[in-house]
Amino acid sequence: MKEYKLPKGFLASGFHCGVKRKRRDLALFYSEEPCNTTALFTRNRAKAAPVILAQKQLKKNSLIRAVVVNSGNANCMTGKKGMKDAFKMVSTMAELLKVSDSEVLVSSTGIIGKFMPMEPILKGMPGLVKKLSVNGLEGAAEGIMTTDRLKKIESRVFIAGGKPITMTAVAKGAGMIKPDMATMLCYIMTDACVAKKALEKALKKATEVSFNSITVDGDMSTNDTVVLMANGKADNKIIKARGADFENFQKNLTDICTELAKLVVRDGEGANKLIEVRVKGARSVSDAKKAADAIANSMLVKCAVLGGDPNWGRIASSVGASGVFFDIDKLEIILDGVTLLKKSRFYEIDRKASTVFKSSDVLIEVNLHNGKKEAVVFSCDISKKYIAFNSYYTT
Amino acid sequence: MKEYKLPKGFLASGFHCGVKRKRRDLALFYSEEPCNTTALFTRNRAKAAPVILAQKQLKKNSLIRAVVVNSGNANCMTGKKGMKDAFKMVSTMAELLKVSDSEVLVSSTGIIGKFMPMEPILKGMPGLVKKLSVNGLEGAAEGIMTTDRLKKIESRVFIAGGKPITMTAVAKGAGMIKPDMATMLCYIMTDACVAKKALEKALKKATEVSFNSITVDGDMSTNDTVVLMANGKADNKIIKARGADFENFQKNLTDICTELAKLVVRDGEGANKLIEVRVKGARSVSDAKKAADAIANSMLVKCAVLGGDPNWGRIASSVGASGVFFDIDKLEIILDGVTLLKKSRFYEIDRKASTVFKSSDVLIEVNLHNGKKEAVVFSCDISKKYIAFNSYYTT
Repeated sequence: MKEYKLPKGFLASGFHCGVKRKRRDLALFYSEEPCNTTALFTRNRAKAAPVILAQKQLKKNSLIRAVVVNSGNANCMTGKKGMKDAFKMVSTMAELLKVSDSEVLVSSTGIIGKFMPMEPILKGMPGLVKKLSVNGLEGAAEGIMTTDRLKKIESRVFIAGGKPITMTAVAKGAGMIKPDMATMLCYIMTDACVAKKALEKALKKATEVSFNSITVDGDMSTNDTVVLMANGKADNKIIKARGADFENFQKNLTDICTELAKLVVRDGEGANKLIEVRVKGARSVSDAKKAADAIANSMLVKCAVLGGDPNWGRIASSVGASGVFFDIDKLEIILDGVTLLKKSRFYEIDRKASTVFKSSDVLIEVNLHNGKKEAVVFSCDISKKYIAFNSYYTT
Repeated sequence: MKEYKLPKGFLASGFHCGVKRKRRDLALFYSEEPCNTTALFTRNRAKAAPVILAQKQLKKNSLIRAVVVNSGNANCMTGKKGMKDAFKMVSTMAELLKVSDSEVLVSSTGIIGKFMPMEPILKGMPGLVKKLSVNGLEGAAEGIMTTDRLKKIESRVFIAGGKPITMTAVAKGAGMIKPDMATMLCYIMTDACVAKKALEKALKKATEVSFNSITVDGDMSTNDTVVLMANGKADNKIIKARGADFENFQKNLTDICTELAKLVVRDGEGANKLIEVRVKGARSVSDAKKAADAIANSMLVKCAVLGGDPNWGRIASSVGASGVFFDIDKLEIILDGVTLLKKSRFYEIDRKASTVFKSSDVLIEVNLHNGKKEAVVFSCDISKKYIAFNSYYTT
């Protein structure tokens, strides 16, 4: 297995406290120095307690030292008790790390509508802290997983502000797959010295084309969280919100997020194929995204990909239903490089398309011929396994 | 089997011309007198040729005598040739019926992106006309079916304008189930004498709470069509767009459309259970509908219903992601009459909910406690059969 390095001054750990049966269920990301930190959260109104708490904390203080994460319980729809529990996790961890409460964030992922099993979690925290290490990344990556089959880690080294910068990120997510669950979490750590505005700008852009451009089943989680922490230990010239250094920082951040996002889709419950949907020729990026989302979320398109069926009619119908304006006579559809519709001329499916949708990575290209903007969305096929998995009885 | 009566002055027929292998694939609805007619069509931009043609025709002339329908081919994404073919079907039928082209509408349903097999269709038309009869309703109901398992017919007799009125309708649709298909068609005939404005108003309202309030897989068809024809043969006092007679007409029309819409959902590919989603306490009807749609379309909710899993967390999450404003502490969720969430108090699933989602008709009630408006949407569960059916290779 590839080895991943934490950036300078960061430690991580994973621990099994007993919320989940077998795998690690606690993770800790820690920086020796306070980090300039920015984060993005789910837009679901049914936000989990740790999301609400972290949003409040970051409004007051964005210098963060640590994020503690548990898997197995989302602490969502748990009312006032849930808020208390989330805060207790923060204060307990702060005490153990000898930092202030405001420097510790908490995330949770797992079942919705059950109170947190606080006893094993609080009991596990000292062990979690004790395990902190520069080699703790893999343990932490496991600690945040729910039904993920793959650990999701990405890392890059690049030069910015005159110094080598390390950026390392870990994510979890496999669609809305655990009987109650639906969460995408990502923690990105870098030793770069970056101005807060630059961090915010970079994370927004990177998230838009990565984590906000994937879909497994169209359901938005209550706990989605992406955190970017920069501790400045690389000693580089500070990276501000424009210029070549920022562009380079942005590029590497976007690359990391995109790779992790694709891993999430590839790990989608019951998924066999990664679908890249690329819509070009739109009047605006938002139009392109809307059309791509419609294709990526269509059950019928997902089924067609599963079956290796070059069914461009379903794709045309999805775009048509998306609400995006286009001229149907100009619509162009290319599946895995084979043009199936162009200028109202369609090609009989059986004539050319025997290779379409046959490999594990498939490409759907649609050109609206109505402008110059484009967008890419990643999706996966749907299989009987998804249905089987998600119809288990919870109790 | 229940027998259904056509309204006075209407005839219908079904015929097998050979586009489909076994079942009838042509249908004709005919009135001895011109009918005041109104229709609603899909909002998909990728509209099929017959939809485009019918919309054009109805702009110029709303006195219609007949609708001819074929199943097996949607005549969609077929460019100029498709438009010519649709018109040829109209003109051929008009000639056979000895009426003008402008008095005949055409609908198609079936595969997208293949040219119409015009030869069997045109050859079959004289036989279709020959079969016209007051007893032809069942044959016509079969002629418009694609993968429907059930024939969908509803009829009512009521008094309005001082006379007994008959209203009879036939529909097809079973979700987006045929490998390329996705169509809901409905033809409603009445012998009432109704003003055109009243027809339009009544159909809009009835469709909104019936055909526009159902979902099988969230995909919108290219061919959806609902036609309402009134020939005035009941000799009643004309029904205008307000008053007690109109209310009665509206009520019966809405009832018929709702029953047919429920049949479409119940017949959804691979569906075992009819799901009624009722959202109350919204600030507006559109908010209530939005929240209900989000629940009804959630793959996770559909899977939970399939599995008999009273998983209210998924429902809360769907409402939260719908974009509708509500206070999470006030959210109330009742599944098949069992309150599972109320004022932030949730009930452990295993304590009370063993009866939830166990029968073939399930009810999801959500109260946002944020206003007085409500909406109902009908959906169905999803099963492995849906996936199997829709991943067949088309060629």
